[in-house]
Amino acid sequence: MKKILLSHGSGGKTSHDLLEFIYKILGEVVINHGEDSGIEELQTKKIAITTDSYVIDPIFFPGGNIGKLAICGTLNDLAMVGAKPVYITLALIIEENFSFNELKKILISIKDQAKTANVKIIAGDTKIVSKGKMDKIFINTAGYGVIEHNQKITSKNAQQGDAVIVSGDIGDHGTTIMALRNEFQSALKSDCVSVAPIIEHLLANEIIIHSLRDPTRGGLASILNEIANSSSVIIELNDEDIPIKDSVNGICDALGIDPLYMACEGRAVLICPDKFTQKVLALLSKFPQGKNARKVGQVISKSNEPKLLLKTFIGSKRILPLLTREQTPRIC
Amino acid sequence: MKKILLSHGSGGKTSHDLLEFIYKILGEVVINHGEDSGIEELQTKKIAITTDSYVIDPIFFPGGNIGKLAICGTLNDLAMVGAKPVYITLALIIEENFSFNELKKILISIKDQAKTANVKIIAGDTKIVSKGKMDKIFINTAGYGVIEHNQKITSKNAQQGDAVIVSGDIGDHGTTIMALRNEFQSALKSDCVSVAPIIEHLLANEIIIHSLRDPTRGGLASILNEIANSSSVIIELNDEDIPIKDSVNGICDALGIDPLYMACEGRAVLICPDKFTQKVLALLSKFPQGKNARKVGQVISKSNEPKLLLKTFIGSKRILPLLTREQTPRIC
Repeated sequence: MKKILLSHGSGGKTSHDLLEFIYKILGEVVINHGEDSGIEELQTKKIAITTDSYVIDPIFFPGGNIGKLAICGTLNDLAMVGAKPVYITLALIIEENFSFNELKKILISIKDQAKTANVKIIAGDTKIVSKGKMDKIFINTAGYGVIEHNQKITSKNAQQGDAVIVSGDIGDHGTTIMALRNEFQSALKSDCVSVAPIIEHLLANEIIIHSLRDPTRGGLASILNEIANSSSVIIELNDEDIPIKDSVNGICDALGIDPLYMACEGRAVLICPDKFTQKVLALLSKFPQGKNARKVGQVISKSNEPKLLLKTFIGSKRILPLLTREQTPRIC
Repeated sequence: MKKILLSHGSGGKTSHDLLEFIYKILGEVVINHGEDSGIEELQTKKIAITTDSYVIDPIFFPGGNIGKLAICGTLNDLAMVGAKPVYITLALIIEENFSFNELKKILISIKDQAKTANVKIIAGDTKIVSKGKMDKIFINTAGYGVIEHNQKITSKNAQQGDAVIVSGDIGDHGTTIMALRNEFQSALKSDCVSVAPIIEHLLANEIIIHSLRDPTRGGLASILNEIANSSSVIIELNDEDIPIKDSVNGICDALGIDPLYMACEGRAVLICPDKFTQKVLALLSKFPQGKNARKVGQVISKSNEPKLLLKTFIGSKRILPLLTREQTPRIC
């Protein structure tokens, strides 16, 4: 099996061979070959920009791989400000001796996701690092989207009385990765998917969104803590309304991890005026990635002591804090 | 000394502490805190986008560090299409146990370079990887510039009769890094600097530029090979006109490496109609990073067998090929 060599990062002939290999697989989703920067004409001047690095371990997992994750993650970060994804950059850092075969699988996933989302790869970079000086492959993607709405969607905008809605089951991605690392038998797979189409659909249907986040690292509880802090509000979750698969609950129990802190990679958390709740749920239900959408809580009040509360089925309440310990390293 | 912990990448409270540390040092160059994407209004719709990862070893070197390199490298890639840099994204991948003190030095360099260039950090990301699973710190930057000129600056546009001009001494960066790794004593330092101001100055003075590249990985010989291939031309370099420091020649001799293949990180290679040569050299001489600018060669002819030739001082010619072996891994 052919392996990546250090010389594939030299800038010389072997580098060109690697680039040709990459270009051939990615095909028409690449729009800039061989220039230092890609140049394009945007449709609007109002843009959104995001970036993320992916260092997930293992790089292949049920429901996806690091390539699919990188593209979906970046599409999702753009969607979280209501932007329509247009361009992405793709930077690969690859360990010497990594197999071309695995690289090909990752690139095919990248291509498939980019095609589905109709985004183009406008710039890229490839670096090779000596064996043992890194772990297999890291991917950085940056994303550029255009903004066509006039809403103020920000973590600072959650308001008293707003509904908290999740677009689907919570914790699948993180739990899948942890199950794999701990060699648990499970049919569970990552929820890794782009939520950009569902956000676009909500905005096109004139849903007012106050705050919007994808609950990746740290999961639902962490991002709701961030929104509570940014908006100076108290948010309350209703335990029995939160959609969590039995298998996720089971694995999380075994691992001693609360699924509310487990990463999702294909979910959105919306905070919007409660009057939109039924319409949002109806609109989301049309999409595979929105069919388990639920209202899971509400913004209780403004507060100088912002916090996230969990109301249990017997009516007691406990604080869900921001965690201080790392539970799940290299989950994305 | 305080060290980076795995929990600094958790998405929880310790992650927030790290972000506060980063934001505090970067200060006003960061324009987006805590949202998934940064949103801005551009001045033009014509944009340039680039990305690069930096995995240089060692991360501190005479003349700079990985942070300075990351910002300058990205500014330079934008400058190479004549774009005015406006925004950058900053993604850090950090090894567990990395020192906060070294991180601070790197961030200060990033801030200084961003301030000097008047670019803003519009989005960022931080990942922590377990000790031994990577080497210290890798940085990815993506850059966004606006294009205000109407020129066609591309590697495909080198034309017969054009002059080949370098903006300064060749090979300083790569030779500095190799000298450091091989523990040579030398006063040499990296040429790492942004060339965006000099390119902006040339365009403002109505210089027509056909091709423009920064000779990073693979050095002058590699990027001129790329231009020759993309434009289907033969390019000839005049050996005695190429500005190379004695110390660079000396170290390269000892290492058995040709300085023409050594990376620069603060140089531009311009290909332009020869009638502009004197004006270009005069304009460049006003800048510290352009004071050793020279015409080093010319585009000889169109050709179906594009190549790069080196004319020696006795008049003989030899081909400078694209190299196939890696000479200098992790140079940037």
